[in-house]
Amino acid sequence: MYVSHLACPKCAATYASEHIIQLCRCGAPLLVRYDLDRVKAAVHKESLMARPPDLWRYKELLPVKQDANRVCLGEGMTPLLPLKKLGPQVGLPNLFMKDEGIIPTGTFKARGAAVGVSRAKELGIEALAMPTNGNAGAALAVYCAAAGIKAIIVMPADAPPIPRGECAITGAELYLVDGLISDAGKIVARAVADYGWFDASTLKEPYRIEGKKTMGLEIAEQFGWQLPDVILYPTGGGVGIIGIFKALQELESMGWIQGKFPRLVAVQSTGCAPIVEAWKRNLTESEFWENAATLAFGITVPKALGDFLVLDAIYQTDGCAVAVEDSEILASEALLASREGTFVCPEGAATLSAALKLVQEGWIKPEEKVVLLNTGSGLKYPETVHTRPPVLSPGDRLPPLSSTD
Amino acid sequence: MYVSHLACPKCAATYASEHIIQLCRCGAPLLVRYDLDRVKAAVHKESLMARPPDLWRYKELLPVKQDANRVCLGEGMTPLLPLKKLGPQVGLPNLFMKDEGIIPTGTFKARGAAVGVSRAKELGIEALAMPTNGNAGAALAVYCAAAGIKAIIVMPADAPPIPRGECAITGAELYLVDGLISDAGKIVARAVADYGWFDASTLKEPYRIEGKKTMGLEIAEQFGWQLPDVILYPTGGGVGIIGIFKALQELESMGWIQGKFPRLVAVQSTGCAPIVEAWKRNLTESEFWENAATLAFGITVPKALGDFLVLDAIYQTDGCAVAVEDSEILASEALLASREGTFVCPEGAATLSAALKLVQEGWIKPEEKVVLLNTGSGLKYPETVHTRPPVLSPGDRLPPLSSTD
Repeated sequence: MYVSHLACPKCAATYASEHIIQLCRCGAPLLVRYDLDRVKAAVHKESLMARPPDLWRYKELLPVKQDANRVCLGEGMTPLLPLKKLGPQVGLPNLFMKDEGIIPTGTFKARGAAVGVSRAKELGIEALAMPTNGNAGAALAVYCAAAGIKAIIVMPADAPPIPRGECAITGAELYLVDGLISDAGKIVARAVADYGWFDASTLKEPYRIEGKKTMGLEIAEQFGWQLPDVILYPTGGGVGIIGIFKALQELESMGWIQGKFPRLVAVQSTGCAPIVEAWKRNLTESEFWENAATLAFGITVPKALGDFLVLDAIYQTDGCAVAVEDSEILASEALLASREGTFVCPEGAATLSAALKLVQEGWIKPEEKVVLLNTGSGLKYPETVHTRPPVLSPGDRLPPLSSTD
Repeated sequence: MYVSHLACPKCAATYASEHIIQLCRCGAPLLVRYDLDRVKAAVHKESLMARPPDLWRYKELLPVKQDANRVCLGEGMTPLLPLKKLGPQVGLPNLFMKDEGIIPTGTFKARGAAVGVSRAKELGIEALAMPTNGNAGAALAVYCAAAGIKAIIVMPADAPPIPRGECAITGAELYLVDGLISDAGKIVARAVADYGWFDASTLKEPYRIEGKKTMGLEIAEQFGWQLPDVILYPTGGGVGIIGIFKALQELESMGWIQGKFPRLVAVQSTGCAPIVEAWKRNLTESEFWENAATLAFGITVPKALGDFLVLDAIYQTDGCAVAVEDSEILASEALLASREGTFVCPEGAATLSAALKLVQEGWIKPEEKVVLLNTGSGLKYPETVHTRPPVLSPGDRLPPLSSTD
């Protein structure tokens, strides 16, 4: 393994990586640091091509020591799709979508869970507890089942229902709470104190971010190590944007990429936009967003523990933060499906809405290479599609296609 | 392109491949034939490794001429998972699962649709009509949207609901019928005659099977061209098992594989088991199954057009056909999820139930290398999981883990 230590991005304290640890003593999340010179000497980027198409192709940049501890369900190397019809239509001929719907559990949460749970297994952890808006908990439950670790999951009662089934069928302990993810977080924090479980909350352990980081590694590899100009990312807890930025920094340190980083764009809903508000005011931290509500449930995070890292990633890459309306999200979901055949989650659709705004404002230039990061499959959100097809009897005839078709 | 012609497996008639065609004049499905010597000369199996992880890596063995006609959403190279915990537990230490849940639209139907629609685009077809149990229609709708082709879909009103949303959001014309897929098929057949649409029904066109074939190509490549002993496949229309057998024959012709073929096992539900019944009586065709009903909706096909090809594949590989109860299917779904973290569709779960039976009967030997083919994600069947989690209020405490955990 090439991990050198854990480091606090806030107070610069360092820790050995071989012990079970949650946050820095200052309360900030810890990040994994690697001996990148050794990684550079051990592996050449060209040799990656021959490895299986999952995120463990980047094993030298991941925090799991023993092959036997790797829990792999085939996660990673998701498609990077050129949006050949929609792009030109909206004035962005170089528009791409990284489609994290094509992954175990149907969302990018699988990446964090795969790496986080594998490392937990390696450290001998027996029970993981997590507050979640649904998909992160489902992914944790799935990977814990594969690893033989007990999962305890608490999610809002209003969260979309499909992840409940994933938790139940994989044998996790599942609880609902009449409240938001922040209420679930408090319940988990108390249980962790009471029973000594490991707290797998977003950024309260150092390893899930390493899994999310692989989205950035893949984008670089899939573009032939020539980075795009802009990456738009739907931002709740923000681990993905932090992870992508960390990936770019590591690749630059190793000399695998050169030049300007993509401008990172945090996309939120107008119903819960603490990062957007902080960015507008040029702050380094966000404030708790009261009465958060949006149909893009996965990004309903009123105050993220890693907000300062998200904002830092935006500032350092000359990025920005954009909030979009729920109605715009639904329109983008339908546009992506009808033009490109991709049925995305509301959070992913939000990135298209944001891109359209930024093109109109001139912040994105038409010739720029732009990546929408779709964080999950629309299959997990059937309630966002309304349909009442005609019901026929055996022997009925179909009408002709209407002339508008 | 390396296609030489289309051939009828029943009456041996041949056809040029450059025209729009449905069935042979004798009424049987047509199969695509390739100039395999030319393919062998043009590509080496070792060179595949450097190609992107989608089914178009096998483009020389696929019937699409122009790159521009290929509609790709990242389908293919699905994970081949060793079932490391469950296998030894059920007496099969070399048990694997090919997981077709990790693919656009969440089921293996994406393969047939990707290749079928790409070829339809190449031939200039403007409207495709299809009767479906849900997932094939959803996949067709998705790929038609990407290709700019009109899709008309007819499915049973009792079919699981999620595919309806996929059809609707991608802009397909969707109809339900109070009946079975066979009733939907009659409605489509009449509309095709009335309006001149192309009939994309299972095996009524030659190209979808070429997409399904890639499952066999991938299994061979993922095992390093050393074939497993047994492949279990949930069988409705049977295109997958026909396609896998066709893939193996083509690979053998090119010298990419040697030795005995895997024994192919058709798995059905006791509620709809026409192939099993025909195999028991050593027949070469099946009979219409009256009052078909099973929760494994995707394999509710009372009489498949390609039944004779399915039975031929079974006989030629010394395979067999097995029917399992719905209760066994649900038990297998839960076992796979809780032991391996894989949330599979009922049809896929049926293959585990069948494998357990065949081990008990001694038909599968413990040391044999066995592949379960899971045709789709459990995420598309949330109704198969029942859960009533406790609902907490903000500030509530969690109970400790029960001692049995």
